[in-house]
Amino acid sequence: MTRQLKSFIEVAQDSDFPIQNLPYGVFSETAEGTRRIGVALGEWVVDLAALEAHGYLALQSGEQYFNQPTLNKFIDSGKSSWSKVRAELQKLLSADNAELRDNSALREQVFFKQANVTLHLPVHVPGYTDFYSSKEHATNVGCMFRDPKNALLANWSELPVGYNGRASSVIVSGTDIVRPSGQIKLPNEERPQFSACRKLDFELETGFIIGKQNQLGQPITVENAWDHIFGMVLFNDWSARDLQQWEYVPLGPFNSKTFASSISPWIVTLEALEPFKTSSPVQEPQPLAYLREDHSANSYDIQLSVEIQAEQAAQADVICETNFKYMYWSMAQQLAHHTIAGCNVQVGDLMGSGTISGPTPDSYGSLLEITWNATKPLTLSNGEQRTFIQDGDTVIMKGHCEKDGLRIGFGEVSGKILPALQFDFQ
Amino acid sequence: MTRQLKSFIEVAQDSDFPIQNLPYGVFSETAEGTRRIGVALGEWVVDLAALEAHGYLALQSGEQYFNQPTLNKFIDSGKSSWSKVRAELQKLLSADNAELRDNSALREQVFFKQANVTLHLPVHVPGYTDFYSSKEHATNVGCMFRDPKNALLANWSELPVGYNGRASSVIVSGTDIVRPSGQIKLPNEERPQFSACRKLDFELETGFIIGKQNQLGQPITVENAWDHIFGMVLFNDWSARDLQQWEYVPLGPFNSKTFASSISPWIVTLEALEPFKTSSPVQEPQPLAYLREDHSANSYDIQLSVEIQAEQAAQADVICETNFKYMYWSMAQQLAHHTIAGCNVQVGDLMGSGTISGPTPDSYGSLLEITWNATKPLTLSNGEQRTFIQDGDTVIMKGHCEKDGLRIGFGEVSGKILPALQFDFQ
Repeated sequence: MTRQLKSFIEVAQDSDFPIQNLPYGVFSETAEGTRRIGVALGEWVVDLAALEAHGYLALQSGEQYFNQPTLNKFIDSGKSSWSKVRAELQKLLSADNAELRDNSALREQVFFKQANVTLHLPVHVPGYTDFYSSKEHATNVGCMFRDPKNALLANWSELPVGYNGRASSVIVSGTDIVRPSGQIKLPNEERPQFSACRKLDFELETGFIIGKQNQLGQPITVENAWDHIFGMVLFNDWSARDLQQWEYVPLGPFNSKTFASSISPWIVTLEALEPFKTSSPVQEPQPLAYLREDHSANSYDIQLSVEIQAEQAAQADVICETNFKYMYWSMAQQLAHHTIAGCNVQVGDLMGSGTISGPTPDSYGSLLEITWNATKPLTLSNGEQRTFIQDGDTVIMKGHCEKDGLRIGFGEVSGKILPALQFDFQ
Repeated sequence: MTRQLKSFIEVAQDSDFPIQNLPYGVFSETAEGTRRIGVALGEWVVDLAALEAHGYLALQSGEQYFNQPTLNKFIDSGKSSWSKVRAELQKLLSADNAELRDNSALREQVFFKQANVTLHLPVHVPGYTDFYSSKEHATNVGCMFRDPKNALLANWSELPVGYNGRASSVIVSGTDIVRPSGQIKLPNEERPQFSACRKLDFELETGFIIGKQNQLGQPITVENAWDHIFGMVLFNDWSARDLQQWEYVPLGPFNSKTFASSISPWIVTLEALEPFKTSSPVQEPQPLAYLREDHSANSYDIQLSVEIQAEQAAQADVICETNFKYMYWSMAQQLAHHTIAGCNVQVGDLMGSGTISGPTPDSYGSLLEITWNATKPLTLSNGEQRTFIQDGDTVIMKGHCEKDGLRIGFGEVSGKILPALQFDFQ
């Protein structure tokens, strides 16, 4: 049984990366070294390019899928290839298979300590879309900025609201972020002013990576949508709330989001997540036909958390614990809606879930909600208070599934905020 | 003098493509043939890959810039290369230079009739942003959907409002477009319904193509912005008004725009447009420092028009005539704003102007405005009426500059609307 599968590589009980996971990433031995594909296994990266060079994982003769700087070519090789490679890797890495286990020369070429390598953006992201699919989050935002009695706009319950994000500023975990500057409008001022962002926030999200394109003008049905998804990542949709509030009407968020969007370096495949399928919330009203699907197993039970590590603090504080299963709209519904008017998606596209808030304040997925727009400051364990993110803070998001002794995790997505630029005209 | 420059190739008086223009595009001899770079000259395409193969236009030894399926590599070679190639081409194609003129063997390899080749998307578009920078357009929309007395939202006069578009569905002129379907909400109905779009519209825009990237976190100043622009195209930002009205709050347009966005096949360089520089409108209030620039020569006098060719009509009807110079925010201001919070732009990015409306109804850049949301139907010369676009209609946009006998044009961007898909569940 898969659950009993063990690798000859020692994997700690609480590791996110047992042999049942094998998430895909891109690494290099030095920061500027050659990028290639690996999977995570315990504390190690397994170099798939090295395995490929030795005749393993062959998908098409003469083609290199893993000696590549991004996963796009492998992903584009199709779902049956993903399964084939996963099965071969699990076999090759299993405790009872001597082939790699007892070949120390090959093992030296194939295994690298994660702590010693540089992880890169795992895919080239041609397009990035962000949804807004947590009912709790949309309700909280609606309560704060609109009418608590009519917090959800009329369209929210009818379609997975989404908007186009900026793909060029999608970055990998660990990349520092300069505090953005721009126009903010204070309530008592007649005109906006130029300022560094004063309300810098995170948004706890997951993202899914498109595994199969559709042609322009040919929608993906909700039934077929799952076949178009390669896997999932953790995602921090950094947000400058003060820039956002001033700029977002009528065409949506722009500079408040486009300065950085961080993803985790490991893409966890849907196959690895299969044991953690669960139901999504009952949808009322029942969606229109093109969005209708059986909700009994269209979500995943993924525990998510956010930590803030203040620059001078001895340890990080967990400030949010929530779960992916709260999402009202499923990934398949998001994708069916995204393409229903004819839009084409491309291999590597990132689809953000939207902020994932749970029902209670300790499960809210943004500081905006946790501190209720700065009216309820948060006290960290070192005594410092936070309403929004300060310079030097590192925000760390983690996620994992756990069931019957099996743990499949995402690792983390983290990012540190650097001070804003100084401008000549200031 | 440049104005007197003539090519040995006959160019008609009213051609958009004299030797002073030389816009860049991508062509192939057959639809599926090898794509390479060309410039337009009169009725001809000049094959730059063929010239390069014969030792002309050399930028860096051993590198091919024109035997490429997109312009990105050439654009990325930098502004001095653009000038160098333009100067060499003008010299090589001039009437008094015998080198190519009298080499009939080479001429046969280099010149192709535009009518006999297939034109493709000239650039790979990594990112697409659409602005909303015509005061007349924003005012018209505000009058229709908000308050005629406060038609412009407060932020509009302070910053060039923009939003992220969908780059994957940017297509080249001549590509047919399937009428989009999706959710529309009729005023008297409680819930939305699934329907083919009933209010399909065009938006007359121009776009500029990014010629030089910036690093994430490093804004482009308004002074430097012009150096980051390679050239301009005509742009039709197709819009499904009924989908848009229902979906756009609070995060902006999505499916109403992502089904198709058409650009002209020729990119006209800023160098070619130089003689047509003009002032943009006076800005009141004066923008914040990061957006401030001398407005005396930060726009271009480009005459623009829209025609509708009904399927059965003998001829197309001109339904709009306007000018780029009406734009309130300049391209440099748009780019400075786009990057001020740190967003990075990439070579090949498309930046849409937003609908370009003039002051009078015959200069409005969308059917929404021309027919005032279907309350004032338009009568075509064959007697048919239009409120929005019908199946079989072809929308054709044209643009050119003209001054002292010199005409520099964009050619056209056209697209025909095909009937909506039929869905099983309908």
